[in-house]
Amino acid sequence: MRTVDIIQKKRDCGALSAEEIRFFVQGVKSGLVSDYQAAALLMAIFLNGMSPDETLVLTLEMLHSGEVMDWSDLPGSKVDKHSTGGVGDKTSLILAPIVAAAGVYVPMISGRGLGHTGGTLDKLQSIPGFKVHLSAAEFRAVLSATHLALGGQTEEIAPVDRKLYALRDVTATVESIPLITASILSKKLAEGIDGLVLDVKFGNGAFMKRFEDGERLAESLVRVGTLAGKQVVALMTEMSQPLGSHVGNSLEVVEAVEVLRGKVESDLGLLSLELAAHMLLLGRAEPDLARARVRARRLLESGAAYRKFEEITEAQGGDPRALSDLGRLPKAERTETYRADRDGVVQRVLAQEVGIAAMALGAGRTTVDSVIDPGVGLILRAKVGDPVRQGDALVTLYYNDDQGLGEALRRLGVAYAIGEESPPRTALIQKVIGAKPN
Amino acid sequence: MRTVDIIQKKRDCGALSAEEIRFFVQGVKSGLVSDYQAAALLMAIFLNGMSPDETLVLTLEMLHSGEVMDWSDLPGSKVDKHSTGGVGDKTSLILAPIVAAAGVYVPMISGRGLGHTGGTLDKLQSIPGFKVHLSAAEFRAVLSATHLALGGQTEEIAPVDRKLYALRDVTATVESIPLITASILSKKLAEGIDGLVLDVKFGNGAFMKRFEDGERLAESLVRVGTLAGKQVVALMTEMSQPLGSHVGNSLEVVEAVEVLRGKVESDLGLLSLELAAHMLLLGRAEPDLARARVRARRLLESGAAYRKFEEITEAQGGDPRALSDLGRLPKAERTETYRADRDGVVQRVLAQEVGIAAMALGAGRTTVDSVIDPGVGLILRAKVGDPVRQGDALVTLYYNDDQGLGEALRRLGVAYAIGEESPPRTALIQKVIGAKPN
Repeated sequence: MRTVDIIQKKRDCGALSAEEIRFFVQGVKSGLVSDYQAAALLMAIFLNGMSPDETLVLTLEMLHSGEVMDWSDLPGSKVDKHSTGGVGDKTSLILAPIVAAAGVYVPMISGRGLGHTGGTLDKLQSIPGFKVHLSAAEFRAVLSATHLALGGQTEEIAPVDRKLYALRDVTATVESIPLITASILSKKLAEGIDGLVLDVKFGNGAFMKRFEDGERLAESLVRVGTLAGKQVVALMTEMSQPLGSHVGNSLEVVEAVEVLRGKVESDLGLLSLELAAHMLLLGRAEPDLARARVRARRLLESGAAYRKFEEITEAQGGDPRALSDLGRLPKAERTETYRADRDGVVQRVLAQEVGIAAMALGAGRTTVDSVIDPGVGLILRAKVGDPVRQGDALVTLYYNDDQGLGEALRRLGVAYAIGEESPPRTALIQKVIGAKPN
Repeated sequence: MRTVDIIQKKRDCGALSAEEIRFFVQGVKSGLVSDYQAAALLMAIFLNGMSPDETLVLTLEMLHSGEVMDWSDLPGSKVDKHSTGGVGDKTSLILAPIVAAAGVYVPMISGRGLGHTGGTLDKLQSIPGFKVHLSAAEFRAVLSATHLALGGQTEEIAPVDRKLYALRDVTATVESIPLITASILSKKLAEGIDGLVLDVKFGNGAFMKRFEDGERLAESLVRVGTLAGKQVVALMTEMSQPLGSHVGNSLEVVEAVEVLRGKVESDLGLLSLELAAHMLLLGRAEPDLARARVRARRLLESGAAYRKFEEITEAQGGDPRALSDLGRLPKAERTETYRADRDGVVQRVLAQEVGIAAMALGAGRTTVDSVIDPGVGLILRAKVGDPVRQGDALVTLYYNDDQGLGEALRRLGVAYAIGEESPPRTALIQKVIGAKPN
């Protein structure tokens, strides 16, 4: 078998056989397939597509290019959630403790964020002492003891995905449904889970701008994940304005803790509850979605989820006093306020612009080597539909270095629009794909 | 400007600007554009195409990535011929002396063949002492003195083409009309020529199997070459059976010399004359094609072209006695005969199979490092339409090492078909594109 023949087959719109996909993935791992051959095949896949069957094989080969965790000694189903990413998305910090508090195991491996703010790992690391780089033995010990472990991706997990992702990033082959599907699922299935809830975001601040593109991705993820023998549900959620009010690493921990302490009635709280309910259902903690919703809310409102978050923080070396006393979290030294320049109603808060504003302050990474400032970020004081008066604070900016402040304020000027009319309310969750009938 | 944005633009079917193409070509030369990014862009170009304007810019940028020869101090037009390659194609050895004998300069730079037989360089090198690696000063001196110089491609000529070609070869991006166009023209225009005659072959033994694909390539070459300010004519010629009777390096020199000595009435002789006539017309040696044809034939039949070949051989260090006494050329030690297994008429002689047979004997290269055996090859004793009797010699095989002999004979068994009917005669030259009206 020759790589060039595999490339040619896909170039000519052929369907690759399982043997060809295996040869390619193993070749990428061993180095037998060069980066330039991989790049050519990625572009051919980008332009000519892959069937669900091809995508399944690619997913499984990428999965088995590395270690797959095995929790068969732990009772019950193991579930996780994956979000395609948005601005202010800190639902993992809320739903993982809810689900673990119900006794369902959540072996959650997160990537490091490359974008507007850090990823879940970076947010957790803003808690003093919180250790995310766990050895396999440590991860197992924490998961067994608390039903939850929050780790970072290691070299051993889907190593071919890491190679291919780096290549896709520089060869304009990122936005491909089959390649995204295989990338997400290979990493998530390596967690040894039985069920996966996907939060597929669309809109201005999401990877997929258009609903239709998000829908195609969600359908592919559910279809291929199901073919792989997993229970998979995808919620399609809007990401036109940021989720919640806090954007930035320690600031997002603050907001998550506030929800865990009972501030439930927000877009963030409600979405976290809904995702948690689906996880409880897949984890067989409840027999139907209605009961799972009640259970999730009770675990949140009773403080059980908050206590679980304290427990996991302590188990992973973090200082739980930083949760009970949020003032112990890192916080930027200086603040600035972005104000309304007129009376009216907030028409839009473009998530992407808010994200770039946060990044300008140092909350995100522009390259893999960038250093994140955990204490900087933004708090949105007004969101879409809120009435405001001229001079009202719309955003509080937390910063240390005023180098990016001008850019951040400029971006907020683009993000916010104030007008006369009340904008139409849209549902945050627009579609659920793959749910079982209740 | 970022490479990834250029890739993305072509991926999304955009037309690249001159600046973008320049950035890419210069980046390939400098190494700023990595091989994997180049490979991704090549695949995007393969699948989404390039307009003639984009192809023109790519051609000129690749051309100017290296040295361009300048013959403005030599009087009159400079012309050359390029063939897309076939089995038994040795027309260069015949037409170059004809055209030079008319006083038109032919600065001919040839590549080294990678395929069934060697390229023009390898054929010339089978003449004892013939030196093809000329310095710029030597090339100029020979061209000035004899109106002809036969050199090899150097590192200085279109270096980006060499890099990209190597990459295309292993990424299944060879058969792209715009990429082939830019590759051929960038190298040929580097010769500093005013006119170019193209022999675009199609059929079983050609790079382009189908007439329509060859036609698209010919049209692209003529269009882009003309946009580049050159006079360009393409002859589309059939390559379903080998051209002439001899296949192999010294054997092809033998056949070329036989034509130069007056054995004109064969497919090889007539095609060489027709290509030479077009070159004479582009070189302004004659005012119209009819007169150019008469001139070409006279130069051949008078022996002027043969004397020119002796002259250039001597000028480039070769032993002219090897032309007057062909027995001095390298010749394989052993022969074998492939014979007809029935009476009938030859229906076909598949050029590709004959080429592979010659390669099996050692006449060609499988990799750039392969060593060619100059003396081995085949002489076809019967071609399409010839009546044969059972036991007649169809092919004489010349070989040194019997390792490839079985394979060669097997291939000849596939190449030849003998039947009852006389097959239809097809014209060797099927279309002329870009010729001026006479």
